Amino acid sequence: MNLKFNAIPLLVTISLLGCHNEDSTISEIQKSLIFQKGQKIENNNFTGTAFLEMLVDADSINQNSVGSVTFEPGSRTNWHRHPNGQIILAIDGEGYYQEKGSPKLILRKGETVKCPPNTPHWHGASASREFVQVAITSRLAGPTEWMQEVTDDEYNAVVK
Amino acid sequence: MNLKFNAIPLLVTISLLGCHNEDSTISEIQKSLIFQKGQKIENNNFTGTAFLEMLVDADSINQNSVGSVTFEPGSRTNWHRHPNGQIILAIDGEGYYQEKGSPKLILRKGETVKCPPNTPHWHGASASREFVQVAITSRLAGPTEWMQEVTDDEYNAVVK
Repeated sequence: MNLKFNAIPLLVTISLLGCHNEDSTISEIQKSLIFQKGQKIENNNFTGTAFLEMLVDADSINQNSVGSVTFEPGSRTNWHRHPNGQIILAIDGEGYYQEKGSPKLILRKGETVKCPPNTPHWHGASASREFVQVAITSRLAGPTEWMQEVTDDEYNAVVK
Repeated sequence: MNLKFNAIPLLVTISLLGCHNEDSTISEIQKSLIFQKGQKIENNNFTGTAFLEMLVDADSINQNSVGSVTFEPGSRTNWHRHPNGQIILAIDGEGYYQEKGSPKLILRKGETVKCPPNTPHWHGASASREFVQVAITSRLAGPTEWMQEVTDDEYNAVVK
């Protein structure tokens, strides 16, 4: 059994203090998020600035990895595919999700996506809002396969 | 691709309204949870009152099921085991987690547990607080195997 501590009582406290301030806004509510923001992603598989907090690593006990990703507005993954699929839980903000050949979709807090195996897709934040997701990725059939960048034309395509 | 809509803008609105009220408390912050509470669990595998919102069903595309469970204070699962293990994400409140032969542990918002395959365990809320968890359960090796109830003595054991 592995137990990982990520509690963020400080942020909850900040939110509570904000609640007695006439200037409180939704952004202060959103600070009371569940998982830490993690480390800035420094590889070349993303456009713009995104952060990763790994929650659970895949291993022989459980072949799923679970990570919380925070995308700054406008940031997104490259196109990529998962040999055994992925589940995305939208935790906060507003994001996009698109599979190759399908329209770009908007993802909002509480929505989930089940991405099929070997299906090229990308996800990221909307142009104006941050997006926080938890990604559940099975490693049973191998690691994520990264592909080309999402072009600005692809990113800016109209949501249908 | 399956997309499921669970956004709860109303609850966010309630929380925001609460922020301008001198009586606002942490419970109002907690109303801005990510997933719906779901339906009351009516089977005999739980003690007390708990609710389940299925987020993702296991199928041929992805063998993981993902569900949000809300335990009222004092409620808990029976002892049970998962043939291919389980990952628990503690979303809110205060809960307990125990594997057979190991001490009872406290789980709080942001903490994660990786429960090994075929390991008898139980989880639930603490005696005084609600507990919300997201459970990620692989069905690759078969369904959850349910066992006996968690006795009051087991439930009330001292946390070490």
